[in-house]
Amino acid sequence: MSVVEEIRVANQAYVNSRTQGQLPLPPARKVAIVTCMDARNLPAIAFGLQEGDAHVIRNAGGRTPEALRSLVISEQLLGTDTIIVAQHTDCGMLTFENRDIHAVIHKNLDQDASHVDFLPFPQLEQNVRNDVQFLRTHPLIPKSVNIYGFVFDVATGRLISLDAE
Amino acid sequence: MSVVEEIRVANQAYVNSRTQGQLPLPPARKVAIVTCMDARNLPAIAFGLQEGDAHVIRNAGGRTPEALRSLVISEQLLGTDTIIVAQHTDCGMLTFENRDIHAVIHKNLDQDASHVDFLPFPQLEQNVRNDVQFLRTHPLIPKSVNIYGFVFDVATGRLISLDAE
Repeated sequence: MSVVEEIRVANQAYVNSRTQGQLPLPPARKVAIVTCMDARNLPAIAFGLQEGDAHVIRNAGGRTPEALRSLVISEQLLGTDTIIVAQHTDCGMLTFENRDIHAVIHKNLDQDASHVDFLPFPQLEQNVRNDVQFLRTHPLIPKSVNIYGFVFDVATGRLISLDAE
Repeated sequence: MSVVEEIRVANQAYVNSRTQGQLPLPPARKVAIVTCMDARNLPAIAFGLQEGDAHVIRNAGGRTPEALRSLVISEQLLGTDTIIVAQHTDCGMLTFENRDIHAVIHKNLDQDASHVDFLPFPQLEQNVRNDVQFLRTHPLIPKSVNIYGFVFDVATGRLISLDAE
C-alpha cells in the first residue's frame, strides 16, 4: 500500500472515531505556534493540543520571517495573542549552507537556485532568539502580543524555555 | 495558568511518557504534507502519523508557493518522494481579500501593508488544484515526485481526494 493509501485508511478510522462536530474557526486557546516541519515533532501530542486549540505554523527550521504572513492573519483576523517559537535540536537546517543546497540542486535538477535563500542557520539557541526578536520588533506584530522562544529536544521531547524566568 | 504554562505542563507529561530515543532525521515514510495552520486540524491524529514519519508544513491556507523552500529541502536533502496538499473547508482564507486585511492592519496598527500578498483564495477545490499544479510544473520539484491534492472537511475530519482515481 502506498503512503497515500495508508494515510487514507488512517483518516477513515479517525473519521469513524470522531464525536465532535464542527468547531469554531478562531483558536480557543488564542495561541499560534511556529515550529519546524521535522518529522520527529508531533505538536498535538508533544504540546498537549486538542482540535480547535491553536494555530500551528510549520516550515523548514520553524523560521519566523517566513511565518509572518500567517502570524499576521492569526493575530489580526483570528484573535490570537500569544506566539510560541519552538526550534529543535538535530535540525537539518544546522547541517548545510545555502551554497551546499544550491550545488545539490544544480547537480540533481540542472537548475540555478542561487537566488533562493533556504534560511539555514549555524547555531540553534541564537537563531531562536533572533527569530523571536524579529517578531518582537516587527511593525506588523503589535507589542501586546506575548512571544516566547523554546528549544525542542528531539531526543527527549522536552521543550526548553530560552526566556529569563 | 497561562497557555504557555499549560503547554509546558502538557509537555512534561509527554516527556515522562515517552519511551523511544532519538529517531533518524529523514522522514521514515518519505512524505511531506502541506496543510493549513487551522486549529481544527491535528495532522498526527487525522492522518495517522507517528514520530519520525512525515514532514508537515503548515501556513495560513496550506499554500504551496510559500511551502516551496521547505519542500525543496525535504526532497533534495531528506529523501521524501511524495507530497500531499490538504486544504480545508471553512478556511479563513476564503473569507477575506487582500484589501480587507490591508484595511484592518491600517486601522489596528497604523501600518501600510499594501505590498504584502496574504494569499487568500476565493474557491477551495480550485485553489487546491492550482497549488498542486504549481508544484507539478515547478522546475525545483522533479517530475518523479508524486503530488496529491485533498480537501480536509473540518466538520467530519474526512480527507477527500481531488485526483481522478
